Amino acid sequence: MSLAPQHENLTGADPDAASAEVAAGVVQLPGRLALHHGGSLDHPTLGWRLAGRAGAPVVVALGGISAHRRVFDPEQPRAGWWSGIAGPGRALDSSRVRVLGIDWLGGSGESTGPTAGGVFPSLSSYDQADALCQLLDHLEIARLRAIVGASYGGMVALAFAERYADRVQQLLVISAADRAHPMATAWRSVQRRMVRFALSGGHASDGMELARALAMATYRSPDEFAARFAQPPRQLDGRFVFPVEEYLFARGRDYAARYRAESFLCLSESIDLHAIDAGRVATPTVVVAVREDQLVPIGDMRALAARLPHARLHEITSLHGHDAFLKEGTALQPVFELLYGVPE
Amino acid sequence: MSLAPQHENLTGADPDAASAEVAAGVVQLPGRLALHHGGSLDHPTLGWRLAGRAGAPVVVALGGISAHRRVFDPEQPRAGWWSGIAGPGRALDSSRVRVLGIDWLGGSGESTGPTAGGVFPSLSSYDQADALCQLLDHLEIARLRAIVGASYGGMVALAFAERYADRVQQLLVISAADRAHPMATAWRSVQRRMVRFALSGGHASDGMELARALAMATYRSPDEFAARFAQPPRQLDGRFVFPVEEYLFARGRDYAARYRAESFLCLSESIDLHAIDAGRVATPTVVVAVREDQLVPIGDMRALAARLPHARLHEITSLHGHDAFLKEGTALQPVFELLYGVPE
Repeated sequence: MSLAPQHENLTGADPDAASAEVAAGVVQLPGRLALHHGGSLDHPTLGWRLAGRAGAPVVVALGGISAHRRVFDPEQPRAGWWSGIAGPGRALDSSRVRVLGIDWLGGSGESTGPTAGGVFPSLSSYDQADALCQLLDHLEIARLRAIVGASYGGMVALAFAERYADRVQQLLVISAADRAHPMATAWRSVQRRMVRFALSGGHASDGMELARALAMATYRSPDEFAARFAQPPRQLDGRFVFPVEEYLFARGRDYAARYRAESFLCLSESIDLHAIDAGRVATPTVVVAVREDQLVPIGDMRALAARLPHARLHEITSLHGHDAFLKEGTALQPVFELLYGVPE
Repeated sequence: MSLAPQHENLTGADPDAASAEVAAGVVQLPGRLALHHGGSLDHPTLGWRLAGRAGAPVVVALGGISAHRRVFDPEQPRAGWWSGIAGPGRALDSSRVRVLGIDWLGGSGESTGPTAGGVFPSLSSYDQADALCQLLDHLEIARLRAIVGASYGGMVALAFAERYADRVQQLLVISAADRAHPMATAWRSVQRRMVRFALSGGHASDGMELARALAMATYRSPDEFAARFAQPPRQLDGRFVFPVEEYLFARGRDYAARYRAESFLCLSESIDLHAIDAGRVATPTVVVAVREDQLVPIGDMRALAARLPHARLHEITSLHGHDAFLKEGTALQPVFELLYGVPE
């Protein structure tokens, strides 16, 4: 049982527009989804969106826990979470492939997730992979050209390939390892406790602002902050406010306004619960590692590449640290080219 | 005007005990202490403690914002914040020098600081240096053999030497630069906002627990956490709790029980306000830098050593990161030897 897909037409200056199409929908998955850590979701819904050249091979694009099914949208570039990387003529080139995006289970989009104040089971990256596989069945996509996953999305890509080797030809995993690093778990544990503390007092938004401010600091590199925020503090309402503090909390407020605290808790925990067996991922995998990533240290990425049976490691340098996957379109371009050269 | 010093006798197995003495007191400084960022403190009090071989040269030992005047105490090793480093026969050898410790202005000890719910002015590392200089006048110590300062204490040591070159012969600065790194300011800004948020709801202790948990993560290195906390999470009260999370929050609860939130806010801000002119520090300085320190990156320590007119840089490697000054007695031993070879 599925809701009818909504078809959008891509128009505008793009010369490939005539052959481009967008389909989107919210599918109700058949039956129960048994969850890796216990419990199940009954007939969960999954929001999806497929955009690109009609009939072209399909590439699934998965991002961080804040990502969603709208990977790119030439008509509203700011609405796509990966607009700098995906789209017609971009590194992930929608004039050559169709790009499938999903709303995460447990997230703030159209997929089944926690409600305000509600209880929701712990989710594994395997659960996201299972839901994605059921979506492919629904969409009658026998085999993906590739899954491109960054951050949490990279974890889900690995989990998918471990379970469904015959459904995907190639992985491109950016800044995601086979498990979370304990220092990253430390930072996220503090974020979750902040949010739960604030939630318990009825101040979810303050908790989300604090958590996102901390998260933003972990997403970037010390050198970037040193270059951007060297100015002295200014006095505001009788207190010193530091440039980096203003930046982090402005971002925190934006995020709190559009992301549900309960979803944050669920997906943040899911990152820390992630633990796959890299030795069982048979799919050829390009591993992209960022040397300045504080959240996913380069050593963990090298170890992942060493454990994967068929991996190519591609290291890049970026001041943006963990956020390089959102910012480094130029550096990532040659990596994405690998997707198009693969014979079907 | 000063309170009478309390004399303690050191006894026990130490062969130097006969010649060792401990004096401690709380002095009320004369007049107003004008503060670097505006405002003043009227007749502030300063808690101090002097322990070591009677008549020996005096070394001031200053630690992080949680440190206090009891640097070491052979009778109660756990009561001294630097018991692993300072004491008879230790790296900072109290059988060769007398060790002077203070309670920070603005802190949770015997010195003037904020009261619960009270307003307190912003403090500079220069203000701590000014108060220390007035204490030396009171104790009739014309010139210090050295100031050994780590973390915030290193910042205060630098501020002191810039202002009072004739009062100190040697500096030993561990894991402290001429200003805070913006990434460290980011982490501390989040901590302060957490504490203020919790304070505003009457939950200071919860805020302190969260802030300290985050701070602990920044004090250690990712490699240490990777080695210690690789185990999977366990379920507790129906929720997954990660090993690193249990550790951080146990430490956070301990800290919240013994440290005043208002003092934490004051001294945490003071770290981020710290900005001295290294080029004006004429005192010979040994700079000890820890390559794994996330809070004070090695690049900042090298730059400090390059800017100081008379510096020797000593780099060490430690899994303990910023906390190396508390843990690496063996590695620090040869550095401290430099203090004793200096002719007066």
